[in-house]
Amino acid sequence: MSPAVFIDALQNELQHTQYGQHPPELYDPIRYIMNLGGKRMRPLLTLMATYLFTDDWRKAVRPALGVEVFHNFTLMHDDIMDQAPLRRGQLTVHEKWNGNIAILSGDVMLVNAYQLLLNIESDKLAPALARFSRTAAEVCEGQQMDMNFETRWDVTEAEYIDMIRLKTSVLLGYALELGGLIAGADEETTRHLYEGGMNIGVGFQLKDDLLDVYGDPTKFGKQVGGDIIANKKTFLLIEALQQAKGSVKDELTDWLTRTDFDKGEKVQAVTSIYDQLGIRQLTEARINDYFTRGFANFDQVKADSDRKNVLIQFARQLVERES
Amino acid sequence: MSPAVFIDALQNELQHTQYGQHPPELYDPIRYIMNLGGKRMRPLLTLMATYLFTDDWRKAVRPALGVEVFHNFTLMHDDIMDQAPLRRGQLTVHEKWNGNIAILSGDVMLVNAYQLLLNIESDKLAPALARFSRTAAEVCEGQQMDMNFETRWDVTEAEYIDMIRLKTSVLLGYALELGGLIAGADEETTRHLYEGGMNIGVGFQLKDDLLDVYGDPTKFGKQVGGDIIANKKTFLLIEALQQAKGSVKDELTDWLTRTDFDKGEKVQAVTSIYDQLGIRQLTEARINDYFTRGFANFDQVKADSDRKNVLIQFARQLVERES
Repeated sequence: MSPAVFIDALQNELQHTQYGQHPPELYDPIRYIMNLGGKRMRPLLTLMATYLFTDDWRKAVRPALGVEVFHNFTLMHDDIMDQAPLRRGQLTVHEKWNGNIAILSGDVMLVNAYQLLLNIESDKLAPALARFSRTAAEVCEGQQMDMNFETRWDVTEAEYIDMIRLKTSVLLGYALELGGLIAGADEETTRHLYEGGMNIGVGFQLKDDLLDVYGDPTKFGKQVGGDIIANKKTFLLIEALQQAKGSVKDELTDWLTRTDFDKGEKVQAVTSIYDQLGIRQLTEARINDYFTRGFANFDQVKADSDRKNVLIQFARQLVERES
Repeated sequence: MSPAVFIDALQNELQHTQYGQHPPELYDPIRYIMNLGGKRMRPLLTLMATYLFTDDWRKAVRPALGVEVFHNFTLMHDDIMDQAPLRRGQLTVHEKWNGNIAILSGDVMLVNAYQLLLNIESDKLAPALARFSRTAAEVCEGQQMDMNFETRWDVTEAEYIDMIRLKTSVLLGYALELGGLIAGADEETTRHLYEGGMNIGVGFQLKDDLLDVYGDPTKFGKQVGGDIIANKKTFLLIEALQQAKGSVKDELTDWLTRTDFDKGEKVQAVTSIYDQLGIRQLTEARINDYFTRGFANFDQVKADSDRKNVLIQFARQLVERES
């Protein structure tokens, strides 16, 4: 089975999903954000996990789309909170319409996510929704922690990992767990899938932080150094703040507190501090650690090896991405 | 059975419900808004409807609280959208904390509502959640319509009734329907309960509009005439705008467009226009019509007459309220 079959099934369902019609201000933003594209990573993981244990993976398509709708709901609300002007190169919903519409459309999207998840067979519905609800609350917890970190300079590595685990990774873990649940896999198996998704997810987010500084500008989609310019509290900056001593610490603090600076110069200077402190190697080691743990979790999942390879190849692509 | 037993059971559950702990900025606002009080009308309706058909009404307590949490979620988000400074005489969440926290806490509340509803027995879970989700989406549709009406002067009576039906009444209908569903009542019965709640709900909201103008100032909690001062598009104003002709129409339009006016004078003048047009009688007739239809729906519900009386007495109190 090629991933293209899963992608086609998802695209087909995406095109046929009716979120609602009236009033249009409520439902047009949902269609808009769902059509902005994206890798559809989460629902693909769900379908691949279902396919591990059953040929009838199509019964997971609508619930998988529920996970994608939930993810896009979090993007719509996060963009309001972050006052982000653009999402995937297009205007964010609160910019194209307004803040109130972005709040209310997002609310309906969260309801829509549950509506899609209600297509899970009734004997599996309660546990699947309980785990989804716990995960959804955790994603909100992660977003709140992320906002709290903006005004703190003493965020520890452990706190940061906990934040990205909640904000990003638990949903990747749940996407895989859901696939297993729908296919009727046992508890041990769904736990391995969840842990695998979570570990890959943490590695994935740390790689995001790394690429922002050390990515190849010809391959990386965004401006290299964007996080440095914005003083974004990434894994790299948190490590540097904890490890820098003496004059290096002073220089880093100086760059973080300057209000008037040349962007290129700041990126170069902070990157050079990271280089001196060996932050790149340290981050790469942590990324590899999480990816290794994730693939070890997948190793524990008992399933047909050809089917497992579809999932593992897909995870490898996520791991090896350059953008 | 006295309603006090239901109220006690709800209060007890309210006190023991854990919404979550960390980070506190996310969960403190939930405890705050849930502790502001209120009539707990919706969960009481659920418990009374369950009690119509079974002694085991306590199994409905947690799902009933889910409806109350959902209702308070809508208040938290509506207050952001309406920029309301106060809710039940206390600071609104976005004023006491900030807008971002009110968005995100509200999001978790919607998840919490589903978590409480997951306590419905598994054989009834899927239909109960499907109907809840449809209702939740409709409440959002009603709120969007309400916002759209703010900038329109040509809102028809039918559009207005449709808006309050969605924004307020469907949730009262669902609260009763849910009680029936949990008790295992048949489809015809739950439909009568839903329709009854919906009709009472529309009457209830129209009475709110009426009391704002014709309420007894010594009994009405808010300032009489508040809606007139704010040009709020109520049933009374919409009727007056449609019925006024000639000089009366000119006078009404004049009051609606003045930016500088004496509040008492405006309230007196607009009320006098309503009097001339017979708006009070017309509104009272519509309220009675909806209440009559609601009680007729309840008449169709086949249940023990003592148990039905508990529900009907409670509905009468809602109907006869002066504040």
